[in-house]
Amino acid sequence: MSLRVAVVGASGYAGSEILRLLLGHPAWAEGKLEISALMGASTAGQTVGELMPHLPQIADRAIEPTDVDALRGMDIVFLALPHGHSAEIAQAVGESTLVIDCAADFRLRDSAQWEKYYGGTHAGTWPYGIPEMPGHRAALAATRRVAVPGCFPTGATLALLPAVKAGLIAPEVTITSITGVSGAGKKAAVPFLGSETMGSLKAYNTAGKHRHTPEIAQNLSEYSEDPVTVSFTPVLAPLPRGILTTASAPIQEGVDEDRARAVYEEFCASEPFLHLLPAGQQPQTQCVLGSNMCHLAVEVDEEAGRLLVISAIDNLTKGTAGAAIQCMNLALGWEETAGLPMAAVAP
Amino acid sequence: MSLRVAVVGASGYAGSEILRLLLGHPAWAEGKLEISALMGASTAGQTVGELMPHLPQIADRAIEPTDVDALRGMDIVFLALPHGHSAEIAQAVGESTLVIDCAADFRLRDSAQWEKYYGGTHAGTWPYGIPEMPGHRAALAATRRVAVPGCFPTGATLALLPAVKAGLIAPEVTITSITGVSGAGKKAAVPFLGSETMGSLKAYNTAGKHRHTPEIAQNLSEYSEDPVTVSFTPVLAPLPRGILTTASAPIQEGVDEDRARAVYEEFCASEPFLHLLPAGQQPQTQCVLGSNMCHLAVEVDEEAGRLLVISAIDNLTKGTAGAAIQCMNLALGWEETAGLPMAAVAP
Amino acid sequence: MSLRVAVVGASGYAGSEILRLLLGHPAWAEGKLEISALMGASTAGQTVGELMPHLPQIADRAIEPTDVDALRGMDIVFLALPHGHSAEIAQAVGESTLVIDCAADFRLRDSAQWEKYYGGTHAGTWPYGIPEMPGHRAALAATRRVAVPGCFPTGATLALLPAVKAGLIAPEVTITSITGVSGAGKKAAVPFLGSETMGSLKAYNTAGKHRHTPEIAQNLSEYSEDPVTVSFTPVLAPLPRGILTTASAPIQEGVDEDRARAVYEEFCASEPFLHLLPAGQQPQTQCVLGSNMCHLAVEVDEEAGRLLVISAIDNLTKGTAGAAIQCMNLALGWEETAGLPMAAVAP
Amino acid sequence: MSLRVAVVGASGYAGSEILRLLLGHPAWAEGKLEISALMGASTAGQTVGELMPHLPQIADRAIEPTDVDALRGMDIVFLALPHGHSAEIAQAVGESTLVIDCAADFRLRDSAQWEKYYGGTHAGTWPYGIPEMPGHRAALAATRRVAVPGCFPTGATLALLPAVKAGLIAPEVTITSITGVSGAGKKAAVPFLGSETMGSLKAYNTAGKHRHTPEIAQNLSEYSEDPVTVSFTPVLAPLPRGILTTASAPIQEGVDEDRARAVYEEFCASEPFLHLLPAGQQPQTQCVLGSNMCHLAVEVDEEAGRLLVISAIDNLTKGTAGAAIQCMNLALGWEETAGLPMAAVAP
Repeated sequence: MSLRVAVVGASGYAGSEILRLLLGHPAWAEGKLEISALMGASTAGQTVGELMPHLPQIADRAIEPTDVDALRGMDIVFLALPHGHSAEIAQAVGESTLVIDCAADFRLRDSAQWEKYYGGTHAGTWPYGIPEMPGHRAALAATRRVAVPGCFPTGATLALLPAVKAGLIAPEVTITSITGVSGAGKKAAVPFLGSETMGSLKAYNTAGKHRHTPEIAQNLSEYSEDPVTVSFTPVLAPLPRGILTTASAPIQEGVDEDRARAVYEEFCASEPFLHLLPAGQQPQTQCVLGSNMCHLAVEVDEEAGRLLVISAIDNLTKGTAGAAIQCMNLALGWEETAGLPMAAVAP
Repeated sequence: MSLRVAVVGASGYAGSEILRLLLGHPAWAEGKLEISALMGASTAGQTVGELMPHLPQIADRAIEPTDVDALRGMDIVFLALPHGHSAEIAQAVGESTLVIDCAADFRLRDSAQWEKYYGGTHAGTWPYGIPEMPGHRAALAATRRVAVPGCFPTGATLALLPAVKAGLIAPEVTITSITGVSGAGKKAAVPFLGSETMGSLKAYNTAGKHRHTPEIAQNLSEYSEDPVTVSFTPVLAPLPRGILTTASAPIQEGVDEDRARAVYEEFCASEPFLHLLPAGQQPQTQCVLGSNMCHLAVEVDEEAGRLLVISAIDNLTKGTAGAAIQCMNLALGWEETAGLPMAAVAP
Repeated sequence: MSLRVAVVGASGYAGSEILRLLLGHPAWAEGKLEISALMGASTAGQTVGELMPHLPQIADRAIEPTDVDALRGMDIVFLALPHGHSAEIAQAVGESTLVIDCAADFRLRDSAQWEKYYGGTHAGTWPYGIPEMPGHRAALAATRRVAVPGCFPTGATLALLPAVKAGLIAPEVTITSITGVSGAGKKAAVPFLGSETMGSLKAYNTAGKHRHTPEIAQNLSEYSEDPVTVSFTPVLAPLPRGILTTASAPIQEGVDEDRARAVYEEFCASEPFLHLLPAGQQPQTQCVLGSNMCHLAVEVDEEAGRLLVISAIDNLTKGTAGAAIQCMNLALGWEETAGLPMAAVAP
Repeated sequence: MSLRVAVVGASGYAGSEILRLLLGHPAWAEGKLEISALMGASTAGQTVGELMPHLPQIADRAIEPTDVDALRGMDIVFLALPHGHSAEIAQAVGESTLVIDCAADFRLRDSAQWEKYYGGTHAGTWPYGIPEMPGHRAALAATRRVAVPGCFPTGATLALLPAVKAGLIAPEVTITSITGVSGAGKKAAVPFLGSETMGSLKAYNTAGKHRHTPEIAQNLSEYSEDPVTVSFTPVLAPLPRGILTTASAPIQEGVDEDRARAVYEEFCASEPFLHLLPAGQQPQTQCVLGSNMCHLAVEVDEEAGRLLVISAIDNLTKGTAGAAIQCMNLALGWEETAGLPMAAVAP
């Protein structure tokens, strides 16, 4: 008997990327998993063919209005909704349903931070979906509730966590993350028009205002004696997908590049989706396009006294939907890498 | 025992796309097929990691110098070389080896045309790798030699063949095909620099000068009483991958849009990689990115008296490497669609 | 005393490009022309700095609500509004005010065509703002009302008019025009988001449905014995600005490339904004970016029996605002080229 | 009598942008300045029309081989050559000729740094062409030799200099500068192909390896008691032109955003090419495209304890050729802003 899957918010970019990955998942090909419901709000009544013509296999399927009752019979529910809707649905579906939430609702542990950055009441905290964070994989394998991380926190955490954990750096990190425009979602707004974004670069929600700032700080601080302060500058760049994170911090006395590389090599060695590039090579976002990989480079800038780490991810795959599927695989006891491309679509 | 595969010209765009698809092919996952040799000329000695960092699974593999002797033991040889090198290799490897040639050497039937467009001596003609062309699938299933079609001919043929075959149009077609820059290959040249191609549109090899012109004419004429004349205008556009073909021709008396759509519906119905969009919807190249699909729209412009067909393909997938894998599947008696994505990486 | 200029619809792309050109116009630098009013609807109350940060010289100016009474005292009024609003304003401002309308309201001569393509009542016909069309320059110099042409008709007319006028071709033209996304205007809509348009190509309003189709036919038919039928296929491409038009038609008996080039050379010789490229060179949209030029290439495809002409313009400059300024210069008796860049911003 | 100008290295991106600006300079229009010689190496013998089709006014002019003797009679010589060629030419032309060098040869004061980063012998130091640096304008007005700054140092210096000079920050700055691909110049190389750069982001010459690092440090240290250490990370992004610089440093005790903004407001007030955006607005590279402006935003991140400054320039205009013209204007006693656009080509 096949597991019944629902995607709520199916026609947004996160939802449609979850669908793309499910359609390439061996469990779908083998009939162990069926896409039972596609739900949406404003797009209800339209077909996949109209909304997501890149998924021709299910072009005739229609988006239904979001219906919490109908979710009760599901085995797996992916939530790809704006912030604030997940708690109600999660409560309704029952504890045995695997709920994987791509929104921010259950990511933060500190309610004050949640309220400061998102407003409203904090719904709670769920196991956080970066299996590469030491200690998290086991929790994710045992849960029926997953908080999928934000796209920037994924790139920044994977870049800096090994350094923080190994004590290579002082706990004050400076991060500039450059993102493709799909990060802004599939909603009409003048600043995200092609004519406004092609050929242009622009920072936004700078100087601590971006909602992913406390999430990055929470992740890194988990492995640090002292809380990690984060200066985070997101930049919008003219590409559809991809995040390049440039992260640096003052290096601790006596740490050189050999030591830094050794720490990262050890960290990445057993992780299927982390790929440390050879010295001298730099990550490129096109080399992770559509894949679930995070490519990494680590260097020491002796003159400036800083460790520099650069990571590249696809914001919709490892940064959102790929992480969701990776966590699904873990929670179901399947091969963690099943259905998750390692090769990217390049050039 | 697994089949031994070699890719010659492995580090170019066609070669690396063949590798991407092989790494996602179930036969590779199941051990029925092994990537035994990666060969190249100028890149010999370098690793996949250096040359194609988007394929981390085989990052440590090295490119070897092209060695015809070493190819003798292979079961399958993909040739992704410049024109003119295939005949010699094909002769050397023996008749039982499946040779799939992505160059133009064996595409044309008319030696005079070959010499006019490519220069030198015509090497011969092999079964032509568009299985969707009526009559070709059986030939491709029975051969050990395949001439993979050019990227533009793929988009243009799939757009117009149903109309030609059904006699919907007069045999004088006008085609403007707009392509991403990977079509120019991975060789350094000023006109293909990012600074020259981003933000710009430019036609090239116009007015019958493009080498794909006779190939398109050959394909369409195969299904026409009278030879089809082709006005072909290729345009370079600022995207990495994708070809949008706009094709039109004078419509025959009495043909209306219903009739035209019926012809295309019937043609596409049994073809897994042809997707006729509903009336009113237009193909987008991003909706076939990385997939082996060809999306199609067909319309009648009553006022102008012309049939208009628009197709979208990924020039490196259905336009080259995807077709190569599709032909491999056929020749080996495997599922034709095995390892070939239908869902695209969008947005 | 300086002339008082108003721009109505100042914050859209046409309006802001008019402003850019006015700020670079010698008459503005010399104080012969002042930008007296910037009007808008939804943006009223906002500053130029907020809406058009690329115009820092007037960053502090505010957009006022559109006020027909306030326009009465103006010497020059540029209308950059959606279709349907121009007649009322034109009537109100008085006959001595130079009104230059970038909308479609007064472009077509055939009311039935206007009603078919735009709906509603046809407001009338004004002198049509392509001074390069034989006979139009004098009319434009003598008028106080100008209908600025559409962007596609500008590129298509300048490409084909010389051929039509000289009888080089049969009156049945096939045009594929590829445009940057600013052509869609500055209004929020999902299909024009950066994530939907970058990396993608898509035709739209095909098979006679685009509103610029009858305008192209009208322009070409003006120089033809028989009415010219137009098959027009617009394509959206991933660049902010620029239109590349590929246009072809059956060539008349006995016309060869020398004859065709001679016709175009003669036509372009005295036109400051038409630049016929040497044989073998192709127009590039980046080479007209921000300029008022139209670059042209003309060829004969002997095998297909067609004349091929390719033109490149900047849709916002020669395609809209540049034409508006060129017509202003003519109507005021100023140097026609004043304030209109010939050099483009490339690469 | 008009001044005779030569551009050496005319067909590269710096050279052609100098030409674009000269063609728009009032002195050229008024005949006070003539473009007397265009010189090049590999492109000698080709026409401007072939090499720089965006400059149709001088399409028929040919590039001559670089000839030091022929430069002797010039009043103004722009050098747009690779590093290492300027000294010889400068010596040959005589002291009364205004030589404006876009290469790095004369930028650095510290010979050891020059040799470390560029190799070979340090040729000397010339007045450095950022007139906005306090003290430099007078020197530039009095010189016949100008070292035009690097593009990254321009963006970084204008971002941080006010803060350093006013003592707002500790002298340890972290800079990530994201650049368009024209920064790599007009030379054929695989990593800068459109297919490699579109849709991708990639850092390069990181961790102190970029040659502009010591130049930034030199500029900032000029206004600091203690030498400023610079962590500099350049990133290549998919746009033709533009540099967005994100720069931050630990803020000094007691400095808040009001104080920081006041410092920047005062600094920018009298500078025609510096435009401090209102609080809450961020620079966009498209808003400086083709203009000589630098747009700036300054903020304090209280939580991270850092000052954040973001600047946008066009790397070829304010970052190279615009600065060269600005310095020419100063040296000739002309209006500093003559011929330098303030309005940008947007969108």
